[in-house]
Amino acid sequence: MRTGVWLVGARGSVATTAITGAAAISAGLTAPTGCVTELEPFRRLGLAAFGELVFGGHDVVETGLVKRAEQLAQAGVLPAGLVEPVRADLLAADERIRPGAGPGDGRTQADAIRALVADLTDFRRRHDLAQVVVVNVSSTEPPVTPDPAHAALSELDAALAAGRTVLPTSSAYAYAAFRAGCAFVDFTPSTGARLPALDELARAEGLPYAGSDGKTGETLVKSVLAPMFTSRALRVRAWSGTNLLGGGDGATLADPVTAASKIDSKQRVLGESLGYPVDGDVHIHNVQELGDWKTAWDHIAFDGFLGVRMTMQFTWQGCDSALAAPLVLDLARFAAAALRAGRSGSLPELGFFFKDPVDSTEHGLSEQFTTLRRWAQDLAARP
Amino acid sequence: MRTGVWLVGARGSVATTAITGAAAISAGLTAPTGCVTELEPFRRLGLAAFGELVFGGHDVVETGLVKRAEQLAQAGVLPAGLVEPVRADLLAADERIRPGAGPGDGRTQADAIRALVADLTDFRRRHDLAQVVVVNVSSTEPPVTPDPAHAALSELDAALAAGRTVLPTSSAYAYAAFRAGCAFVDFTPSTGARLPALDELARAEGLPYAGSDGKTGETLVKSVLAPMFTSRALRVRAWSGTNLLGGGDGATLADPVTAASKIDSKQRVLGESLGYPVDGDVHIHNVQELGDWKTAWDHIAFDGFLGVRMTMQFTWQGCDSALAAPLVLDLARFAAAALRAGRSGSLPELGFFFKDPVDSTEHGLSEQFTTLRRWAQDLAARP
Amino acid sequence: MRTGVWLVGARGSVATTAITGAAAISAGLTAPTGCVTELEPFRRLGLAAFGELVFGGHDVVETGLVKRAEQLAQAGVLPAGLVEPVRADLLAADERIRPGAGPGDGRTQADAIRALVADLTDFRRRHDLAQVVVVNVSSTEPPVTPDPAHAALSELDAALAAGRTVLPTSSAYAYAAFRAGCAFVDFTPSTGARLPALDELARAEGLPYAGSDGKTGETLVKSVLAPMFTSRALRVRAWSGTNLLGGGDGATLADPVTAASKIDSKQRVLGESLGYPVDGDVHIHNVQELGDWKTAWDHIAFDGFLGVRMTMQFTWQGCDSALAAPLVLDLARFAAAALRAGRSGSLPELGFFFKDPVDSTEHGLSEQFTTLRRWAQDLAARP
Amino acid sequence: MRTGVWLVGARGSVATTAITGAAAISAGLTAPTGCVTELEPFRRLGLAAFGELVFGGHDVVETGLVKRAEQLAQAGVLPAGLVEPVRADLLAADERIRPGAGPGDGRTQADAIRALVADLTDFRRRHDLAQVVVVNVSSTEPPVTPDPAHAALSELDAALAAGRTVLPTSSAYAYAAFRAGCAFVDFTPSTGARLPALDELARAEGLPYAGSDGKTGETLVKSVLAPMFTSRALRVRAWSGTNLLGGGDGATLADPVTAASKIDSKQRVLGESLGYPVDGDVHIHNVQELGDWKTAWDHIAFDGFLGVRMTMQFTWQGCDSALAAPLVLDLARFAAAALRAGRSGSLPELGFFFKDPVDSTEHGLSEQFTTLRRWAQDLAARP
Repeated sequence: MRTGVWLVGARGSVATTAITGAAAISAGLTAPTGCVTELEPFRRLGLAAFGELVFGGHDVVETGLVKRAEQLAQAGVLPAGLVEPVRADLLAADERIRPGAGPGDGRTQADAIRALVADLTDFRRRHDLAQVVVVNVSSTEPPVTPDPAHAALSELDAALAAGRTVLPTSSAYAYAAFRAGCAFVDFTPSTGARLPALDELARAEGLPYAGSDGKTGETLVKSVLAPMFTSRALRVRAWSGTNLLGGGDGATLADPVTAASKIDSKQRVLGESLGYPVDGDVHIHNVQELGDWKTAWDHIAFDGFLGVRMTMQFTWQGCDSALAAPLVLDLARFAAAALRAGRSGSLPELGFFFKDPVDSTEHGLSEQFTTLRRWAQDLAARP
Repeated sequence: MRTGVWLVGARGSVATTAITGAAAISAGLTAPTGCVTELEPFRRLGLAAFGELVFGGHDVVETGLVKRAEQLAQAGVLPAGLVEPVRADLLAADERIRPGAGPGDGRTQADAIRALVADLTDFRRRHDLAQVVVVNVSSTEPPVTPDPAHAALSELDAALAAGRTVLPTSSAYAYAAFRAGCAFVDFTPSTGARLPALDELARAEGLPYAGSDGKTGETLVKSVLAPMFTSRALRVRAWSGTNLLGGGDGATLADPVTAASKIDSKQRVLGESLGYPVDGDVHIHNVQELGDWKTAWDHIAFDGFLGVRMTMQFTWQGCDSALAAPLVLDLARFAAAALRAGRSGSLPELGFFFKDPVDSTEHGLSEQFTTLRRWAQDLAARP
Repeated sequence: MRTGVWLVGARGSVATTAITGAAAISAGLTAPTGCVTELEPFRRLGLAAFGELVFGGHDVVETGLVKRAEQLAQAGVLPAGLVEPVRADLLAADERIRPGAGPGDGRTQADAIRALVADLTDFRRRHDLAQVVVVNVSSTEPPVTPDPAHAALSELDAALAAGRTVLPTSSAYAYAAFRAGCAFVDFTPSTGARLPALDELARAEGLPYAGSDGKTGETLVKSVLAPMFTSRALRVRAWSGTNLLGGGDGATLADPVTAASKIDSKQRVLGESLGYPVDGDVHIHNVQELGDWKTAWDHIAFDGFLGVRMTMQFTWQGCDSALAAPLVLDLARFAAAALRAGRSGSLPELGFFFKDPVDSTEHGLSEQFTTLRRWAQDLAARP
Repeated sequence: MRTGVWLVGARGSVATTAITGAAAISAGLTAPTGCVTELEPFRRLGLAAFGELVFGGHDVVETGLVKRAEQLAQAGVLPAGLVEPVRADLLAADERIRPGAGPGDGRTQADAIRALVADLTDFRRRHDLAQVVVVNVSSTEPPVTPDPAHAALSELDAALAAGRTVLPTSSAYAYAAFRAGCAFVDFTPSTGARLPALDELARAEGLPYAGSDGKTGETLVKSVLAPMFTSRALRVRAWSGTNLLGGGDGATLADPVTAASKIDSKQRVLGESLGYPVDGDVHIHNVQELGDWKTAWDHIAFDGFLGVRMTMQFTWQGCDSALAAPLVLDLARFAAAALRAGRSGSLPELGFFFKDPVDSTEHGLSEQFTTLRRWAQDLAARP
């Protein structure tokens, strides 16, 4: 059951790590550490095997996957000896990468979308793929400007037909994915499929989508600590988070406007988990020297019995791409299964993977895991 | 529905904090922060109100509760202005404290136990209590020496009748509690009711018991982080914990033999949660200057995707007595409800509160909370 | 030898803590912890005794010192039992506080300054003070707009005479101090005496001044760690600092424009100590819940032998006013001694106390301490 | 000026890193980061160049240096690409390694020492070395049992002549070094040259020695923080340190008896710097998974003004061998210079490098650096 995984941002470090890792696991070179789909409850669900995943994607970057993987190995994101044995896989995936549709290339957005649809259709046909999942792992966009055309599919189509550029890039990809019969996953905080018009399109086409913003590090920890404080009736007074990171993400998120969607997504877990407003913010600071190695420090001031003031702090030193990549593979495998099972519209049951789960206010990791397990079993139980 | 709470170690800092706090909450002087029983799902269960709790207990210490509370206020464990308004409650409780049954007071253990039973019976009668819960909050004992008399109630009774001292002190209290028709809760890692002979006695008398070792700080955090790593398929390579604490606990746990049961209990959560052995240990270091303010530092080394090595650290700066006291009140209220509902034998459903839950290997806090909620609702649903 | 200490911001928490502390130490109620002037090498220099310090100052705030001290005791900044015994001292100081010269009160700046000079002169005469030191402990100002009148005293005086408001408030205080024959210390990052025209005035009048920005916490630690890395030839790649604080300072520094002078001052130590540019920034985040209890987290990425990458992190949890207050007393005592000894102009030898020492690029704490010791001994050696 | 560096423990990770690094720096493959001798004030002293250092040594381990270096590169202690270019240097050094003199090889200690002397003499002659420095980088020994023969050289020689084994291994090496006309440096906390009899021998032969216990990580930080607290009159109440480490050192130091000398050496800095006893201890915990990557956490509770309690914490995540190796090279270069300059007996001026500096109670890093600089300039100034 060959399954296409079409990555938007296919030559970025998350995509490169995911493609390299899938090849290495499939070849038996390494264990599937970090892959949720390889945990006991999910192993017998008949998900697409790592070796059955066929990667392609869009990217405007021209540095090839092999070179990118070598750079990542240099930086310690990939183990030194892992790139050479999967070179052929990387080269094959690299040939399936198309330039994509950045803003401002002269075409109307409708034309650009048509080209994307053609790329996806061509990918499915050439490689004889049972289904294709489009996963957005490109750079975070600034918050989108609302537009009346986002409210309904008919208005959106009219706007596009009129030659207007009404969709942020991530949403143009989601639109194209749905028009091409693909599932869509947004691993970033960008808008993606989260517009009424696109939800309408997904349901009309009977296609599933999931998002947003992969929950990989600091927020992951928050999503187990916040319920801990809640279930123990401890009152959180202030929760402050600082994230140091470099690489492309560090540079992108150094811009406060762009960072806004990320930060908003990172803080949501707190308010919604604790049920009351909490002092303190999340900050993202660009430290180029740290590269892909993100360090987060969280300081939590809370009240215990009789109002006695206590403190918890944590630091998380993780490699961002290595945290994201296995989740990208998990999401592709789950979304492919949902597509095959005929699920349509948003998949709130995949909230386990996201900082800002679509159509869900549950942020507790444990509850999300229970939901995921039930959903997957239910999916497998169907004919 | 007046409910007796008999505290073994009734003049210790946990007991003093619990008694002061219950009086202060009942008088409306402070919010019930840290009290799980005051969370939404438990509020409508008809648990004994804080004002219905009548405190008594055993202690060999002679410093009265008022003086002890003033010392705790000095150390910041209790808010400065809270002791004076509840002075009458503290004095009343103080008069209900009996010297108890330490080892080596000349009597046979059977005689000592008879005196304990008389104290408990007298307590219930004098104060017209619907039920009494005995809670052990005394110092941690060293690990117990196994004895054949522990295996069955008949053998235990024969050994006691023969004048032998076969039970560790905590178990003598459990035995007395059961003989006096009380529920028993062990908040310490000591043996308490966890001997086959005592379980037999509890069941014979139709009495419930819970334990062991209140999960208040570092282990509480572990019990949400370990499931986080597991559900994300991240491989924990080493987990090392250091606890700095002073006070009586610091001094007691500076003795490696005594600390052994505590440490064993603190580490159990890891092996049983992760399902594989993990490098690293838990250490407890006595720092008298820190008093009741425990600081724990945990260092967790884990592998992510493709074996990339990452690290998480946390520090927890909490006031031990203020963390323990509300749980003592919660446990007394829950155990009283179980007693009233006719529950008999161990209460694994209260595992949420313990480092080493009796008859349960579930350590995940979220799962434990779900279990607790169901149990409590079921209890309330009964006629 | 009665010595006047005139505090600009005399009812703020630093001033209140300093006045309360001086009274308490003088009365033998507490040890002079945190007072550098009480260390062995400075004890025999004949500095003004704590009991000889007479406090007065300017403040627009109307909450009296007693009330302010009680609030600080409530927040744990002052020990609970210390305010009552020194109530008389606080009341006496409170009566010596004048409203001061905020911007925009209708008068010309020249008139406002004349009033300040009158306050200072009156203070000296009424209390029969051998010398007076003005210490600025008011809120941080935003960076000053350059003005040609700052370049020389004659131009400054001409501008003032013309009715212009050319000086930032902190500099108006410095000007008044010099015109009234007082020494001036700037404990904040504001401009204070650091304008050529004011330096000229100080020298003309034969008066000393010191500043800027008390080195109390995070930067203090930096000033020993940076030389450590340097003397071990370890290459710092990135140094990132995050400061969480509440209170008035938290609110003031939440404004990026105002914070700019503070942050600039905090970072200076790094570049000047290490001798090469370092990635990373200092950030100040307002967390009102933390009040005066500042928590700083610094993350330092450095290269060791053969470029191996290593990390150091520290957290500093200090009470800002309690860190600043003893230094304010130290500076008043040292500046008074300098004034008495006839020192004129900037006192770079007091750089030990400052983040941004005037006329000095030495930031290493140990070197600064050596300089301070020599300077003080030299001062004492003079007739 | 070819200089011999004879490493006791020549195939351990510190030695391997030092030899590899010296070759790499000499070949211009990497910068001399971490080498104090390459700082400005020492560059013009005419120290032996890296390329002039000729390495040899003793070790019972048989794994060759190339293989060892490859293992270290695998573990990230050495950069991946650095081993291959210096393979010839490693092979050459490897051929100069002799089996050494472990305890219990049948010979008398006198015979064993004679063999060591022969090795050293042979090394000097074969390689035409101007001087030889013996540096002990072998495993830490347990504390030594006192023996009357340690008190004077005549008694020591008599005991050896009588066939007794009176010296710990590290001291046997020191004895042999002095008999062979070499300088001796003890980078470990073992006894080494620190016995009256050996000091006598060194002075009799006109040879210098230095030690003990390289100050590489946690203690290095302590040696700048302790003076910071002192010079600011802040009162340290408790200082607790926890060190997690794996590798050979982790295993050796897991034995409390052996660790005793290390821990004693690590704590000395505090008492001697602060001048008063401080609560808290240093602990070393073996975590094999961490390998050479040591993580230390220190928790410091201190009092500020008016007794307000504050806290500082730091974590240090360093690669032990990469921290030690450049100091080994520095010490060899400085000791060679001292030998050449005719210095005899202990070198307290090298205290900058040691946790437990011989004949010095100065632990402040900054003061030690000043002393080192003066000493080195003085050395260079001599004809």
